[in-house]
Amino acid sequence: MPTASQLLQEFARVRSQTVALCAPLATEDYVVQPHLDASPPKWHLGHTSWFFETFILHRFERDFAPHHADFGFLFNSYYNSIGVRVDRPLRGICTRPTVREVLDYRQAVDQRVTALLKLQAENPELLSLLELGLHHEQQHQELLLTDIKAVLFQEPLFPAYAAAPARNSVQHEGGWTDFDGGRTWIGHEGSGFCFDNELTRHEVLLRPYRLANRQVTNGEFLRFMHNGGYTRAQYWLADGWDIVRQNNWQAPQYWLQRGDRWFAHTLYGLREVDPLAPVVHVSYYEADAYARYAGKRLPTEFEWEHAARQCQALQRPATLQAGGLEPRAGAALGAGPQAMIGEVWEWTSSAYGSYPGFRAAAGAIGEYNGKFMVNQMVLRGGSVATPADHIRLSYRNFFHPDKRWQFSGMRLAADI
Amino acid sequence: MPTASQLLQEFARVRSQTVALCAPLATEDYVVQPHLDASPPKWHLGHTSWFFETFILHRFERDFAPHHADFGFLFNSYYNSIGVRVDRPLRGICTRPTVREVLDYRQAVDQRVTALLKLQAENPELLSLLELGLHHEQQHQELLLTDIKAVLFQEPLFPAYAAAPARNSVQHEGGWTDFDGGRTWIGHEGSGFCFDNELTRHEVLLRPYRLANRQVTNGEFLRFMHNGGYTRAQYWLADGWDIVRQNNWQAPQYWLQRGDRWFAHTLYGLREVDPLAPVVHVSYYEADAYARYAGKRLPTEFEWEHAARQCQALQRPATLQAGGLEPRAGAALGAGPQAMIGEVWEWTSSAYGSYPGFRAAAGAIGEYNGKFMVNQMVLRGGSVATPADHIRLSYRNFFHPDKRWQFSGMRLAADI
Amino acid sequence: MPTASQLLQEFARVRSQTVALCAPLATEDYVVQPHLDASPPKWHLGHTSWFFETFILHRFERDFAPHHADFGFLFNSYYNSIGVRVDRPLRGICTRPTVREVLDYRQAVDQRVTALLKLQAENPELLSLLELGLHHEQQHQELLLTDIKAVLFQEPLFPAYAAAPARNSVQHEGGWTDFDGGRTWIGHEGSGFCFDNELTRHEVLLRPYRLANRQVTNGEFLRFMHNGGYTRAQYWLADGWDIVRQNNWQAPQYWLQRGDRWFAHTLYGLREVDPLAPVVHVSYYEADAYARYAGKRLPTEFEWEHAARQCQALQRPATLQAGGLEPRAGAALGAGPQAMIGEVWEWTSSAYGSYPGFRAAAGAIGEYNGKFMVNQMVLRGGSVATPADHIRLSYRNFFHPDKRWQFSGMRLAADI
Amino acid sequence: MPTASQLLQEFARVRSQTVALCAPLATEDYVVQPHLDASPPKWHLGHTSWFFETFILHRFERDFAPHHADFGFLFNSYYNSIGVRVDRPLRGICTRPTVREVLDYRQAVDQRVTALLKLQAENPELLSLLELGLHHEQQHQELLLTDIKAVLFQEPLFPAYAAAPARNSVQHEGGWTDFDGGRTWIGHEGSGFCFDNELTRHEVLLRPYRLANRQVTNGEFLRFMHNGGYTRAQYWLADGWDIVRQNNWQAPQYWLQRGDRWFAHTLYGLREVDPLAPVVHVSYYEADAYARYAGKRLPTEFEWEHAARQCQALQRPATLQAGGLEPRAGAALGAGPQAMIGEVWEWTSSAYGSYPGFRAAAGAIGEYNGKFMVNQMVLRGGSVATPADHIRLSYRNFFHPDKRWQFSGMRLAADI
Repeated sequence: MPTASQLLQEFARVRSQTVALCAPLATEDYVVQPHLDASPPKWHLGHTSWFFETFILHRFERDFAPHHADFGFLFNSYYNSIGVRVDRPLRGICTRPTVREVLDYRQAVDQRVTALLKLQAENPELLSLLELGLHHEQQHQELLLTDIKAVLFQEPLFPAYAAAPARNSVQHEGGWTDFDGGRTWIGHEGSGFCFDNELTRHEVLLRPYRLANRQVTNGEFLRFMHNGGYTRAQYWLADGWDIVRQNNWQAPQYWLQRGDRWFAHTLYGLREVDPLAPVVHVSYYEADAYARYAGKRLPTEFEWEHAARQCQALQRPATLQAGGLEPRAGAALGAGPQAMIGEVWEWTSSAYGSYPGFRAAAGAIGEYNGKFMVNQMVLRGGSVATPADHIRLSYRNFFHPDKRWQFSGMRLAADI
Repeated sequence: MPTASQLLQEFARVRSQTVALCAPLATEDYVVQPHLDASPPKWHLGHTSWFFETFILHRFERDFAPHHADFGFLFNSYYNSIGVRVDRPLRGICTRPTVREVLDYRQAVDQRVTALLKLQAENPELLSLLELGLHHEQQHQELLLTDIKAVLFQEPLFPAYAAAPARNSVQHEGGWTDFDGGRTWIGHEGSGFCFDNELTRHEVLLRPYRLANRQVTNGEFLRFMHNGGYTRAQYWLADGWDIVRQNNWQAPQYWLQRGDRWFAHTLYGLREVDPLAPVVHVSYYEADAYARYAGKRLPTEFEWEHAARQCQALQRPATLQAGGLEPRAGAALGAGPQAMIGEVWEWTSSAYGSYPGFRAAAGAIGEYNGKFMVNQMVLRGGSVATPADHIRLSYRNFFHPDKRWQFSGMRLAADI
Repeated sequence: MPTASQLLQEFARVRSQTVALCAPLATEDYVVQPHLDASPPKWHLGHTSWFFETFILHRFERDFAPHHADFGFLFNSYYNSIGVRVDRPLRGICTRPTVREVLDYRQAVDQRVTALLKLQAENPELLSLLELGLHHEQQHQELLLTDIKAVLFQEPLFPAYAAAPARNSVQHEGGWTDFDGGRTWIGHEGSGFCFDNELTRHEVLLRPYRLANRQVTNGEFLRFMHNGGYTRAQYWLADGWDIVRQNNWQAPQYWLQRGDRWFAHTLYGLREVDPLAPVVHVSYYEADAYARYAGKRLPTEFEWEHAARQCQALQRPATLQAGGLEPRAGAALGAGPQAMIGEVWEWTSSAYGSYPGFRAAAGAIGEYNGKFMVNQMVLRGGSVATPADHIRLSYRNFFHPDKRWQFSGMRLAADI
Repeated sequence: MPTASQLLQEFARVRSQTVALCAPLATEDYVVQPHLDASPPKWHLGHTSWFFETFILHRFERDFAPHHADFGFLFNSYYNSIGVRVDRPLRGICTRPTVREVLDYRQAVDQRVTALLKLQAENPELLSLLELGLHHEQQHQELLLTDIKAVLFQEPLFPAYAAAPARNSVQHEGGWTDFDGGRTWIGHEGSGFCFDNELTRHEVLLRPYRLANRQVTNGEFLRFMHNGGYTRAQYWLADGWDIVRQNNWQAPQYWLQRGDRWFAHTLYGLREVDPLAPVVHVSYYEADAYARYAGKRLPTEFEWEHAARQCQALQRPATLQAGGLEPRAGAALGAGPQAMIGEVWEWTSSAYGSYPGFRAAAGAIGEYNGKFMVNQMVLRGGSVATPADHIRLSYRNFFHPDKRWQFSGMRLAADI
């Protein structure tokens, strides 16, 4: 557990980073909800503050009074234990509080949390909830980026969130690495922070398997498309095929065809698709269909974690150093799988469920992860949008299999 | 037809009035679409400018170039002849152009129209379209107010658009006035401006009828509610009864019950319902149900126009002088029906259709009225939100019978 | 008013005719509901019996007991005053009572009504309701045929309801007839039966107009289709254009293209479209769009009635003599409009509303017509499926403007 | 692999059993589709025949000709490889072929399969597909019963499918049995028939666990309901809570409250709920919520299979001997878990996915199981409606977590 002083420093850094992520926005951009899965940027700013107000200030402040009587209603995401809340589909039609008022709210919460922490620096429960709040805020930093991407996609000119770096794609030769099976430990180890869904650490049995050294690329996915990928039922799970036809999917999210060239809306604006870069914004259904088309399969989350622990080049250094906002191509940096961390979320074939011995926390915090353990698939590895100090080898992300507005891609596996 | 110089003066006045109506808004308020029938205030500002750009600048400017390549797509309302357009339900997720950019657009259009008008002051077609554009803009001034009302209704605190005047309700004693039937002329007369749907002026045959001297009041409507108005099928048209149950209607739009008192969201904020003021924000279904409950009926649009032409106190003077934004109670100002103009839109029992000999204009302007002549009911008289110089005795407004976000109320009629 | 003895004879004839109409069906055909506007044949058989049981036996039988406790729930169509009822969309999943049991129900009702009528032969209210019940049953005879047509359309082989007669189409030369305007009486005259919506007989003012001597034919409608009828917004009412796109309409209901030929599912099975026969199974939107395309308009219901009263060849004799089940081509039989009665329902441009002085009957019977007086358009003339003695010149049929599973077509009108 | 002669005998037995299951139905009952998950009984009769025609006759008959050109379209369930098919939601509006024609179809297929088998008695592929077809038919026998139950539930009088046996409930004392963890083999063993989803047999690691000796009973579930089970979000998975509110669930499927007593529609008609019998017709969401309420959890499918292999009283003998159609209470028959086979399907906490090394068969047969491996949960054990010789310890049934028209219940587990 970090000390109060370490947490204070981290609190200041993380909280200001959230605001900094919104700097490129016009006031109007903060307000809208581009689709039902996304939230308005303004809402993220408010909700992350509400989290600290509700779970820390309300609990530990003597003589607590809410910053505003209605913010609890407005900024509660899904905590049924806390009370009624605005329906998710209506988040995008609330114009008040204004952006200015939400930023004031943030500042007030920051000051109160800081003051409280100085008063109760030895309160372990407070420190623990504060640490959770910071990790929660980092999750919303990623959602902020993906939801801003969705907001800007609504605009006819596909405005850029940031200036594009030079594209300098390098061919990764690909290839496969074999892994032995056997008993292996899964889940978070050690005393550092983790979410409840990464526990209990436990052993599983693996059979020998093979994992691709890089993610599936746009170029490979384009060949799938040209070979009838979206029009042949044989590649698809039944539920996925229904979704493809209902939504008339013909390419990954954000892709647009102009003449015979494919472009994609990115945080750098509309750009031609780079065939060497990892494909992204695909749903589980598309990832699974591609794997079946390729005669391979997706890895389980256990295989993924097992392999990652042996991986020599977990991250693609240039990406992170350059502050890259979109996945990009990169040469191999040694043997074995590359860039398993921090490039794209990789869909696994594992349904999101509880580890043996899982116990949700008591009270509202217990709603954090456990109640989503059905109908969702696990993704591993984090993406370019994930704060670098937020991701872990045991980290489990999860989405319904039709979602694709996150930076989700895939890496293939196979039986040996 | 007004002269170019008169139109220039009117153009400046009307255009600046639209912007002035938005003065109380925060930037965030301009962006959202509170429900599918309403449009974001920003959209109204853009669309009314687009109307002048498309139907005047594009047609008459030498070397016309659009202000912005995409604004045609964004701000076209429903003119299929002009090209593709953004789907109405998506108007509320476009954040760009920003409010600032839309105001720049307005200014640019204003300058170009002004310059053009000076160059072609004798062009009758230009003058005629400009006059139409001003009436079009006035229609959107009313929609702006009702849509702003809808935006502010989303906010938990029901913020006020304007400070409330003192409520000084006076009892109107009510009563009825009898009218003879016979042949009567209907439709616009004279050389002044009118919309195409007010023509051809023609004769109809009326039977003797009776018209109420004032509109139905909130107090009367509350009694209807207390007498099972929303729970007894016998009062309702079949389609209306379906709507009541689907939407669980229990009161007019914007009404909220707190304890045993009824409040309504108004442009002055949340206020207790005034039993003496005209009921408003009711659909045709509710107006018709109330009439059936009361053993009366709604007037036809012909009866309404026939009576209004004989009415001594068409307007409620205080209301207009005080710039009232909500309907209010008023004492009788002489014999006969009162306040038929400028208080509330009055639902008639007439389905919206074409008058004999109706001819839609050629081209896109022909889509203005004619293509809506099905499934809608006629309302007459204008409301407090209608610009005072925009309304006429022959003016025909029309909405689908389930709509109620306009200032729509009713006045009863009966056979003699 | 007919005498009890006349009514008894008519009762026997009409009731057995309903059952006879079902003779070609398999038991399975009685059960299903092909779409939400239609009802299973079994339901029609039950509902028409329920009508007599509810409005006559229940009221006039001493010691009335229902035939079956649940039939009131099952066979109530839309009478809210009578009590709860099965939701219309669920009519097609009730398998009990079986067809056999419903026929038993019919027989029991027939016997009880017959016995009652003999006991109370002088009861004018009973006689009046019985007469209404017979007209109600005849309305359902037409619906039976159109709903059976819809049931059989679900089957891959388009089974025929009846053997097709020889097609012997004769060209009708068409042409127009001019009518003077002026004051004219509208509505039912005399002491014979009529529905409440045909009253009060009243005068209207007509302007001179022109009416086509025959209905629009399939051949003419095919030319409309070939000229972009279903793809050009300019022909369509706004609500109609939405429907066309939502449903991807490309031809009248029941039409299927095979190669470059058009076929239609008919009560005689799948048959090539006869270019000389009247087009049928078009909605109001299609009728109105065709008229606009043709530079004409639809007649008002008043023009239609006014012209029909002067028409020399109201019916197409061969059709009725041969028991035709589908509209067909016919040569002119004299001057003026032809076949205005008994061929196809002709859409008028009149919204369905009440005549001046309309009074709905007290009680549940009052729900018969009045509560549908919104959102629907009037059709006149009756079709090949209408019992010949059921139709009148003042008869007003009405449907929502998107409906087209009835035998609905059109005849054009124009201003002079 | 059974011999041709054994299969012939089995074929005759299974095929006639399907028809026998329909004996209590009226013709009308065969036609309707009570909800989108169910199919009309007529469809099951046709589809199971189509399976033999398509996968056996079409493949192995010399000079194959289809029984009827359209039956492939009508009776294909979900095999995209075979061609287009009738949309599932429309199965209930096809009245042809009639029941008589479908039974003729069955008979013709039976004769052709029998003749073919005699000709090609040594064809291993034929024998293998025939065996698969019989297991497929047995699956539909269970669906027939549950879909018939759904059909009869539509009827106001809840007709019984069969006469009810005497209720003779015996209290089962309950209790728990502990199991060691460790490595255990999962999946089908031996050369007998199994579905592809039961393979590859493989080892998993289990932690020690505890399993309830009997299923959760109606009485226990009633206490959950009385303790706010359906109104407190804390018990529910998020997706489940949405379903509860959308559908206003307040009890298991088929339960009805009359006064303060609970009744359930059963295959024996409407009967008061037996508090000692296993609860049934609950979704995964309800099973999971109950487990959380009880402070326990559902077992994984691996724990279930591991325990069942050690269970002494797998079946509840009386139930099967008496031909019971509904689950019932039963006393303990020795130590350990009871009645894990053939009583109710038991929801497990395992998402339905592929076993390591799973390979779908080539061609259309490959669509049998694999394409459903997402969004569904595994159920184990079979129910009273499952043919006794159809169930195995390794048998994996699967449904979406909101489905509950099958005989699905639960048995609790816990960590040690």
